[in-house]
Amino acid sequence: MAKKDAELKADLKKLKEKVQKLRKKVRKSAKVEAPAGKAPNPVSPLAPKDGFPALPRIAGVEFAAVAAGVRYAGRTDVMLARLAPGTALAGAFTRSSTRAACVLDCQAKLKGTPYSDAGAAIVVNSGNANAFTGKAGQASVDAVTGAVAAALGMPASRVLSSSTGVIGEPLPHDRIIAKLPDLTAALDEGGIEMAARAIMTTDTFPKGAAAEIAGEGGTIRIAGIAKGSGMIAPDMATMLVYVFTDAAISAKALQKMVSRQVDDTFNAITVDSDTSTSDALVVAATGMSDAAPITDLRGKVARAFETALRGVMMDLAHQVVKDGEGATKFVEVRVTGATDAADAHKIAMAIANSPLVKTAIAGQDANWGRIVAAIGKSGGRADRDLISIRFGDLLVAEKGWRVPDYSEEAASAYMKSQELLIHVDLGLGKAAKSVWTCDLTHRYIDINADYRS
Amino acid sequence: MAKKDAELKADLKKLKEKVQKLRKKVRKSAKVEAPAGKAPNPVSPLAPKDGFPALPRIAGVEFAAVAAGVRYAGRTDVMLARLAPGTALAGAFTRSSTRAACVLDCQAKLKGTPYSDAGAAIVVNSGNANAFTGKAGQASVDAVTGAVAAALGMPASRVLSSSTGVIGEPLPHDRIIAKLPDLTAALDEGGIEMAARAIMTTDTFPKGAAAEIAGEGGTIRIAGIAKGSGMIAPDMATMLVYVFTDAAISAKALQKMVSRQVDDTFNAITVDSDTSTSDALVVAATGMSDAAPITDLRGKVARAFETALRGVMMDLAHQVVKDGEGATKFVEVRVTGATDAADAHKIAMAIANSPLVKTAIAGQDANWGRIVAAIGKSGGRADRDLISIRFGDLLVAEKGWRVPDYSEEAASAYMKSQELLIHVDLGLGKAAKSVWTCDLTHRYIDINADYRS
Repeated sequence: MAKKDAELKADLKKLKEKVQKLRKKVRKSAKVEAPAGKAPNPVSPLAPKDGFPALPRIAGVEFAAVAAGVRYAGRTDVMLARLAPGTALAGAFTRSSTRAACVLDCQAKLKGTPYSDAGAAIVVNSGNANAFTGKAGQASVDAVTGAVAAALGMPASRVLSSSTGVIGEPLPHDRIIAKLPDLTAALDEGGIEMAARAIMTTDTFPKGAAAEIAGEGGTIRIAGIAKGSGMIAPDMATMLVYVFTDAAISAKALQKMVSRQVDDTFNAITVDSDTSTSDALVVAATGMSDAAPITDLRGKVARAFETALRGVMMDLAHQVVKDGEGATKFVEVRVTGATDAADAHKIAMAIANSPLVKTAIAGQDANWGRIVAAIGKSGGRADRDLISIRFGDLLVAEKGWRVPDYSEEAASAYMKSQELLIHVDLGLGKAAKSVWTCDLTHRYIDINADYRS
Repeated sequence: MAKKDAELKADLKKLKEKVQKLRKKVRKSAKVEAPAGKAPNPVSPLAPKDGFPALPRIAGVEFAAVAAGVRYAGRTDVMLARLAPGTALAGAFTRSSTRAACVLDCQAKLKGTPYSDAGAAIVVNSGNANAFTGKAGQASVDAVTGAVAAALGMPASRVLSSSTGVIGEPLPHDRIIAKLPDLTAALDEGGIEMAARAIMTTDTFPKGAAAEIAGEGGTIRIAGIAKGSGMIAPDMATMLVYVFTDAAISAKALQKMVSRQVDDTFNAITVDSDTSTSDALVVAATGMSDAAPITDLRGKVARAFETALRGVMMDLAHQVVKDGEGATKFVEVRVTGATDAADAHKIAMAIANSPLVKTAIAGQDANWGRIVAAIGKSGGRADRDLISIRFGDLLVAEKGWRVPDYSEEAASAYMKSQELLIHVDLGLGKAAKSVWTCDLTHRYIDINADYRS
């Protein structure tokens, strides 16, 4: 038996080496051949089954995308959105203390002229984050936004930029500027999917979401796109998100709604607990809908609009998790019975970020003990003997122990689902919070152990 | 080329399936045959080259280990240490809000009778953590410590217990109690290595460390053992650590020293950011050295003793990281120039726990951009444009950007080392802190995606 074991191990070792070699070959060939707009990684099993959704055109918003060779070869990597004169802008950004120049620039500009009679624009490149690039970082932002302003005839104070990709490399902004004639010539109201593809990095699918509501005298439309897959633990918004609407609404009211909804949406997701230096969410309202302006902020239309906006933000946030690097499971962690919302969030995030919980989910193992440990380390108030834990509807533990009729079989069967709910009730108070995460698999390590190379 | 690619992928898939099957077979046979005191996982490449160190006998301390079948078959899983009458006890324990019954019991007992003329004992089982087991948890602790007290003729208030292993399963304490006659019969001053092996779970090697100092009129000896490999982000001590000394010192003075040194040692290591429900450090001083009692706590001997104790604690802490689940690199993260020590610790831990930093290290990728992102998310004070980053002696970034003569080649060459230093200077103040971590590899996921099954 011992000999057999040794033989098996030797066989396993040989096979592993073969797998490593083949894997390298596959990667190499994938890298060279990566077709335009497609990442070399296989599409996430959690991607929407029907592909990119049909998004409505938003009056007053045009898109263009181009392959500028910022870093990637043979795929689009710069997108431009032109917004009609009078567009109201709002946003939310990472609170990282090492945030990128473009983030600081967006924040300053939104503080200055979130509304203006002038037009506005958003320019985004993938492949290079222009983060931790010293004074050269702001110079690149000024060069790009200045050139876009000149090309489109608007003040640079109304041009917002984002960069996503590798940190610490100088941004070759000349390559972006050289493509501006192509970009402006290609501007098109129907170009939103191209834009969603151009901002991808390790994403395996482009992300879009939309909503429509009835305004007074016409329809109000919302359409948004996002990118994000790794370095996802937003401290405000995740990665890059752009939401467009034709609603007529003041920048101040729009900002209020965005700030109010960001905590339950983009701040409630995590892939790997790593917060980016570049997270940015920009919401632009062109005011070109036929519907009457939203002025009564407690009125029915305002409430419907905020609900629809929240829906689009939530949809995009969930898509980011579903494209989490290496993800095979989409998991809601719901904490109820907390003393306050901050505790509920802290405990839910501790569970959602625990490598041991995430590897157990990857292994389809109903290891609720690791959930108990994560609650314990979170810093949130919890009483061990009041906690109950459910997988979906299945009660597995209560009063500080597993239930008497606990069935490992039933719990294991549930863990095979692609979408999971982990529900922890603390039994202390009335506050509740949900966050969303994915599992931690070998592919996460494959992707991140050689992302730069 | 596309066809070749598809063929390669098909080959890869087939091989992967074979590997999975073989892996299962190996695991199955390893589980049944696991030889005494040996874990089924291959020994960490970071394990001490010379095996378990030769530890000095500590007068007044005897050890025994036995295979009680708590969970594992065919290996020792219970250890008993008998301590001489008059032994002073000190300790530090997890602050998890879901900590195990045995931890709460140790804390109560150390608060009550850290010193007594009676003897003392430590009993530890692996395989089952007796955590989140409701009221039955304390009943099991009482049963085991009561039985040990009766067997050794000492009050139960002087018997400390620990349990490590799976959470949420009832502890089969009868199996432990049934082996007490064997254990007490086997007590031996030279049995410390057996004890170190009996407390292992996913550990791949037993951990021991020792020191000797010259006291007044004789030698003072210290010897310690530890276990720990996963769920390591101690919020006080890591996992299970037992340190023995023949020094004559009051329990109060001993506790002071332990509390003072725990932050720089066991609280400065992390494997996976997951804090255990069972972390316990117990330090026992028998007072049986020939040297005079340590009464002058500012004197030379007291200082030498505390330094030696710190050395043993640090050595054991580093061994736990070196046995980190799946570890192939041992990494010191040193933060200097911080505003205060709390910020330095916060930032160092954010880097040491970042999955993106840890996968980059696994991939031998000098990805200092991810270090910048981790600093940014930490919550500690940092000014992007004052940060400098070194890999070993190699300056890679300063003043918010990579150095002008940055050499990817030199940085990559450094990353191939088995022991790495990541040194971040914040340029803000004078506070500094080091923490230790390991890389995040495929093996971590192998180990944790099916630990229970």
